[in-house]
Amino acid sequence: MPGGPPRSAGSAGSAMTPEDPPMTPEALRDAFLRVRRQTDELAAPLTGEDQTAQSLPEASPVKWHLAHTSWFFEAFVLTKAGTGYAPAASDYGELFGAGAANGGGRRHPRRERGLLTRPTAAEVGGYRRRVDEAVLSSFEAGISAETAAAALLGIHHEQRHQEFLLADLKHLFWKNPRQPAYRPSGDAGVFGPPAPTPPLRFVSFAGGELAFGHGGGSFAFAGETPRHSRLLPPFQLASRLVTNREYLEFVEEGGYREASLWLADGWEARRRHGWEAPLYWKRAGGGFEEFTLGGLAPLAPESPVSHVSFFEADAFARWRESRLPTEFEWEAAAAGRPVRGAFLESGLLHPSPAEGGPIGGRAASPAQLFGDLWEWTASAGLPYPGFRSVLRSPAAAAAAPDGRFLFGRMVLRGGSCLTPAGGFRATCRNFLRPEARWQASGIRLARGG
Amino acid sequence: MPGGPPRSAGSAGSAMTPEDPPMTPEALRDAFLRVRRQTDELAAPLTGEDQTAQSLPEASPVKWHLAHTSWFFEAFVLTKAGTGYAPAASDYGELFGAGAANGGGRRHPRRERGLLTRPTAAEVGGYRRRVDEAVLSSFEAGISAETAAAALLGIHHEQRHQEFLLADLKHLFWKNPRQPAYRPSGDAGVFGPPAPTPPLRFVSFAGGELAFGHGGGSFAFAGETPRHSRLLPPFQLASRLVTNREYLEFVEEGGYREASLWLADGWEARRRHGWEAPLYWKRAGGGFEEFTLGGLAPLAPESPVSHVSFFEADAFARWRESRLPTEFEWEAAAAGRPVRGAFLESGLLHPSPAEGGPIGGRAASPAQLFGDLWEWTASAGLPYPGFRSVLRSPAAAAAAPDGRFLFGRMVLRGGSCLTPAGGFRATCRNFLRPEARWQASGIRLARGG
Amino acid sequence: MPGGPPRSAGSAGSAMTPEDPPMTPEALRDAFLRVRRQTDELAAPLTGEDQTAQSLPEASPVKWHLAHTSWFFEAFVLTKAGTGYAPAASDYGELFGAGAANGGGRRHPRRERGLLTRPTAAEVGGYRRRVDEAVLSSFEAGISAETAAAALLGIHHEQRHQEFLLADLKHLFWKNPRQPAYRPSGDAGVFGPPAPTPPLRFVSFAGGELAFGHGGGSFAFAGETPRHSRLLPPFQLASRLVTNREYLEFVEEGGYREASLWLADGWEARRRHGWEAPLYWKRAGGGFEEFTLGGLAPLAPESPVSHVSFFEADAFARWRESRLPTEFEWEAAAAGRPVRGAFLESGLLHPSPAEGGPIGGRAASPAQLFGDLWEWTASAGLPYPGFRSVLRSPAAAAAAPDGRFLFGRMVLRGGSCLTPAGGFRATCRNFLRPEARWQASGIRLARGG
Amino acid sequence: MPGGPPRSAGSAGSAMTPEDPPMTPEALRDAFLRVRRQTDELAAPLTGEDQTAQSLPEASPVKWHLAHTSWFFEAFVLTKAGTGYAPAASDYGELFGAGAANGGGRRHPRRERGLLTRPTAAEVGGYRRRVDEAVLSSFEAGISAETAAAALLGIHHEQRHQEFLLADLKHLFWKNPRQPAYRPSGDAGVFGPPAPTPPLRFVSFAGGELAFGHGGGSFAFAGETPRHSRLLPPFQLASRLVTNREYLEFVEEGGYREASLWLADGWEARRRHGWEAPLYWKRAGGGFEEFTLGGLAPLAPESPVSHVSFFEADAFARWRESRLPTEFEWEAAAAGRPVRGAFLESGLLHPSPAEGGPIGGRAASPAQLFGDLWEWTASAGLPYPGFRSVLRSPAAAAAAPDGRFLFGRMVLRGGSCLTPAGGFRATCRNFLRPEARWQASGIRLARGG
Repeated sequence: MPGGPPRSAGSAGSAMTPEDPPMTPEALRDAFLRVRRQTDELAAPLTGEDQTAQSLPEASPVKWHLAHTSWFFEAFVLTKAGTGYAPAASDYGELFGAGAANGGGRRHPRRERGLLTRPTAAEVGGYRRRVDEAVLSSFEAGISAETAAAALLGIHHEQRHQEFLLADLKHLFWKNPRQPAYRPSGDAGVFGPPAPTPPLRFVSFAGGELAFGHGGGSFAFAGETPRHSRLLPPFQLASRLVTNREYLEFVEEGGYREASLWLADGWEARRRHGWEAPLYWKRAGGGFEEFTLGGLAPLAPESPVSHVSFFEADAFARWRESRLPTEFEWEAAAAGRPVRGAFLESGLLHPSPAEGGPIGGRAASPAQLFGDLWEWTASAGLPYPGFRSVLRSPAAAAAAPDGRFLFGRMVLRGGSCLTPAGGFRATCRNFLRPEARWQASGIRLARGG
Repeated sequence: MPGGPPRSAGSAGSAMTPEDPPMTPEALRDAFLRVRRQTDELAAPLTGEDQTAQSLPEASPVKWHLAHTSWFFEAFVLTKAGTGYAPAASDYGELFGAGAANGGGRRHPRRERGLLTRPTAAEVGGYRRRVDEAVLSSFEAGISAETAAAALLGIHHEQRHQEFLLADLKHLFWKNPRQPAYRPSGDAGVFGPPAPTPPLRFVSFAGGELAFGHGGGSFAFAGETPRHSRLLPPFQLASRLVTNREYLEFVEEGGYREASLWLADGWEARRRHGWEAPLYWKRAGGGFEEFTLGGLAPLAPESPVSHVSFFEADAFARWRESRLPTEFEWEAAAAGRPVRGAFLESGLLHPSPAEGGPIGGRAASPAQLFGDLWEWTASAGLPYPGFRSVLRSPAAAAAAPDGRFLFGRMVLRGGSCLTPAGGFRATCRNFLRPEARWQASGIRLARGG
Repeated sequence: MPGGPPRSAGSAGSAMTPEDPPMTPEALRDAFLRVRRQTDELAAPLTGEDQTAQSLPEASPVKWHLAHTSWFFEAFVLTKAGTGYAPAASDYGELFGAGAANGGGRRHPRRERGLLTRPTAAEVGGYRRRVDEAVLSSFEAGISAETAAAALLGIHHEQRHQEFLLADLKHLFWKNPRQPAYRPSGDAGVFGPPAPTPPLRFVSFAGGELAFGHGGGSFAFAGETPRHSRLLPPFQLASRLVTNREYLEFVEEGGYREASLWLADGWEARRRHGWEAPLYWKRAGGGFEEFTLGGLAPLAPESPVSHVSFFEADAFARWRESRLPTEFEWEAAAAGRPVRGAFLESGLLHPSPAEGGPIGGRAASPAQLFGDLWEWTASAGLPYPGFRSVLRSPAAAAAAPDGRFLFGRMVLRGGSCLTPAGGFRATCRNFLRPEARWQASGIRLARGG
Repeated sequence: MPGGPPRSAGSAGSAMTPEDPPMTPEALRDAFLRVRRQTDELAAPLTGEDQTAQSLPEASPVKWHLAHTSWFFEAFVLTKAGTGYAPAASDYGELFGAGAANGGGRRHPRRERGLLTRPTAAEVGGYRRRVDEAVLSSFEAGISAETAAAALLGIHHEQRHQEFLLADLKHLFWKNPRQPAYRPSGDAGVFGPPAPTPPLRFVSFAGGELAFGHGGGSFAFAGETPRHSRLLPPFQLASRLVTNREYLEFVEEGGYREASLWLADGWEARRRHGWEAPLYWKRAGGGFEEFTLGGLAPLAPESPVSHVSFFEADAFARWRESRLPTEFEWEAAAAGRPVRGAFLESGLLHPSPAEGGPIGGRAASPAQLFGDLWEWTASAGLPYPGFRSVLRSPAAAAAAPDGRFLFGRMVLRGGSCLTPAGGFRATCRNFLRPEARWQASGIRLARGG
């Protein structure tokens, strides 16, 4: 590699996680308790019935998330802890397990998870408490470094499922003609402030030879590694996310009817699914309402547009004579910045309008990089150069999709208002089918390059 | 029409119903209470989660059946009774209504009924009690003859849904890897008695000009009318239903691999669905187990084979160098006989072996005509000559499928172990797609004709 | 069966066929030569390319029809004639054979017939001549009665394929943006006469116990047998076919947008296929053109509407507060009448307006019963009572679809302008899927019954 | 960008094309005549019927290729040449045109190209001659530089279609049960030499900052531009293509039954299509035969395995604990080497065994980089950084798929035995769906990186 050491793109990774190893037993215990309680709280407003149904083949019932995350600790922490733990039920691996690493065991088909009326939500609640107690006991008894690593993996794994749980539930409630609110939107004003968002500007980045991916020193999923160098041409990134107001123009000016704006596969997806607007937009009067976890609300023009597919994001970008950034452009822009933004802990559960944005010239920073909405990139879900498959680590394979499952998916970056903030990193990658719309996805434009 | 008055085929219809008009208010009240309690009892062992899920597009959740049958009384009795009844909720028509007669209102899509986690099972239970009280009050206040007729229709309608409720639930539990029992099979011996069934013989019928369909004088669904004459050539009907033992031979001798035994559409259905045995058969060791509402059980060789499609029944018949009877042959054989058999009230919830069967010559009667299993016939679901559409009677249209929905279905006759006995008639017709297997359907062979 | 002998419904069958057995060798030879020449003449205007393509899975290329009808004589006449005939090619059975009777041999998949660029049209032409010569030689040498029967079957079989050949070709040309004419429509006036058709009236029939099906004494396909009795209530049949003008009203008044007019399966078919008018109607200016074997032509308002599916015919009938006749009503009306009408030999290749119709009262006869268009009936394609499968007669099984292939089809009656007149009988049944539109099918209304 | 100027990866591009600009009029005329004659010769052995059929939605009939390549010159050369050329037919743009650039005109649906029995092959032949004469006349009259560029584009465009023509025809003949030979395989020994191929070794490459893509100075398609720099880690490339012998081991050791070897989407494609071996392998006795343009032949163990999908190539690589190269690794290895290999002009029409391969250490070169088979890479079909859409250049848009059509495709490199050699470049990219198997695609393994 010519030249000196590459400047760091994702090196902030090590700064943003609180779990600097060696993590103390107390810190691990606290993190464990925190994530488990947070999950329980997310499920608390829901009846057993709400927890059981599944409205998309690629989504899972809330109950399944609750059980699956517990199974993870059972399979990779408790049975290794040497405390003679007996699994809660002989078939939970079949019902709630995951991962290609499963040694030939049976797996309940993913698309039939909504048929699991047994075990009941109450039984799954009992399962969670049983696992909590056993894990805490094993912590007290002392666990090996390897088991501690598996527990840490389980904590991060459960954080990902917190986000899935809410996105999946939102879709389920959307499919109910009553369109119930997951919880009342206390302060409706939060989503539609009087002040307009600042105008969308483009912030310039110099590019160059930069390092990407996670470099160790704190937790990361395998897919974020290895850290490696790439050459990046100069590029520009939008100062904020695209708003509902801007996207509405695209809708109203016929963006969904003009084939030349769309990728060929996108145009076909649009036709097949009958897309005419983002997923949760609903025509009302002459305009649109938007379904949120607080129920139906008038479309907030200054809020970021959300629940669009990659294909819609790409078509919108072409209409604006822009493009989507690559995941490396995004990471170059985000590297080294504090990981602050509207994450799950904000309690908003919905993206908010950008507050400030760039005032002046090149030094200014894009807003909303972290939180609010996952941002579609133009990068395919390919492993990084030198990536080693995690197939031989069952826990890692169960915690995050192996590379074999990423083919055909696009990368999203930055987390969303449903993503837990704890341990979120600039190197985090999310992978979705280009037609996926039910997760909290939005649009950031790019130019140049 | 030459000759004298036709001998009666279905004339027993008037003898078998307890509700001989004019039905007294007390009798109507009793029948109403009986059917409502019976439904409640059927649902009693189930959690809210069990009541919510839907495992087939053509099935419905238990909760939906509970609400839909209540909506029927609300829509066609309470709002007509003049007692100022206020509907329980403004959207129950959308969620739980049915019938082509719905005046342009919205209908929740049938295949998404399993997503209705709200209203909850508890709310639906409350709805049932509210409707029960209001109906009883309206009875006390006195109702018109027309409203009484609608109430009677609602009672028969709810009986049909009792059967659907159990068939749909059975499929849901089958899809659960735990394959839970709806209720313990107290006396396992009931399904697999030591004594072999009597040999299958053919009973001869003379045919001739006979009358078919319901002739009035008691309750019937519109599709059973009008009563009309047909010429029937002489024919023979099997003395009992086909048993598991007999069907197992068909399976083991390659019946599912020999195209020439199957209707072309049946062969294609077999291939598309991957059929290799009846729906609830499961390979275990070298043989089969069968899933029942009491859970998995060893296949009882002497019990009637159940949960086969029309296509399988037809292929089996061809293999046995027989055929399926027409619905008119069946009705000719059943007419005038007492409607006795193993219906829902027997509590068996599963077909039982034939006990006796014909001893001697032509006078002997086929066993198991009523109850145990619906019997596939070779008759397409066409309206009878002179049938008048019920589209102008919203209650009738909601209570049973209009002719427009019968095209493409085949007729089954005789009721099953899940069918309530009350008011069952020899003229009752059931209509299913030829590939349907989840209802309690079996095979009776015929010859001649 | 009570009463005297049934009045004859289809007894005219024996009067209308010229091939009264024993057919003389000369008559058989003449019939053979006639049908073979007629087929050659139908294909004469077509290039090898036209003869090779297949535009529907259920249609076949012209070349395939030419070869298949020759294969029939090879398989069932020549190899039985004892003249030491050697088949033209070892794989013609695989490529051009048919019938469930094929003893386990391979069959080229039906939907890939358009890929058979080899053998070429020229080779198939040579095959036809080779077979012609060998059959004539075998006739000269003298053949057994059984072989003569197979030859007669082959002649009728080839007549059916003449009709398929033209219907399939018409669809192929329709799919070509050039929409070429099979042959110039010499006298354009033929399809659109100045005089309006007579008003549609209903002709009354008394019904009663009547005999149906073919009774022997001349040729018939197995599916027309056995002759049997049925009771028919009184009914009325329309005096002529429904015209384009009448059907256009249905189109323009929203018939294709009103679900309550359609069978449920029909409404679904309409949606899936995007039907908005009959198959060959094409919007032009404010109206419609119609594609014919003479090319595109202005829609002739007085001509019978053609190329509608059963579902469209049924919906139209409901819109007119009528219904489709059963096949037995049709046969009762046609029995005993001379088999005259616009068949293939008329050279019109398109249905013509009815010329007269009933003048007065009950004695009047419906027009257009034979020829012009096959008429959809409300009867499912079920075997007649007592029908014996032809599976053990390979020739019969190859000549016409066995009952196993009729399930899911509806019966049409009367023949069309593409049907050869020779030997056409009132008992002839045609069987098509209810969504089929590419054959020459039209609508006759019925009432009463 | 740090460091000195990047070493060249694809710079050989300018050296390998004979058409160094300014191309003389004589050279252009010669190239035009050469490519047109070559195409005519490819089609010469085929009947009109062979030229008309289409066996895959993504393939085209030979006749269509013959007409489409002529239409290109008509649309982009003749109508611009100012010689008053009148198009041969008003509908050839609809029938034979292509490109997103088409100004709103109608396009005949791609999957129905096999239904175009008119115009005939003879008419298309006349069209070709008419266009040839007019182009030569316009050359004589003198054309502008822009029109000369369009003509050069048309020549390269026709070369691409020569390859498609043969690949599409091969599939058509494969679907014919006769499996005819496009032309006799004169020297059968060519595909199965006695000597084994040299063992597969891995050749090391240093990587570094390299330039990729076409840098101008000669013809290239837009998708090969712009030239740009990338960092490449060190990597190893296999010394030759994977052979049938090696792939057969994968088949026989259960490679098609082991899910963990496959991408998730690949496993699903395998199941859906029923893949058990490469496309043209056919079980015969205990082994396999392979279908070639010379007909069926015994599988040649030393020849490269061909007609595998990306998914199969990827699974094979995983089984061999290797991976597929990126398109940049391939280009880095090929850059600067002479473009020599078994292309279309070799007349082999089938891949040949590698002859030599690396003897010793790092200096050795991989064999078979050019010709024989297109090599699947692990790179998605994304535009290069800075790529400008060609949508505003109708000729360019018609000549090669715009970026909007590449989404969802993978890149292949190196050309094949069906690719014309003239003007082939190391920067050439081919784009196919990962499940495509009907083009001449093979496997080269990589390691490291």
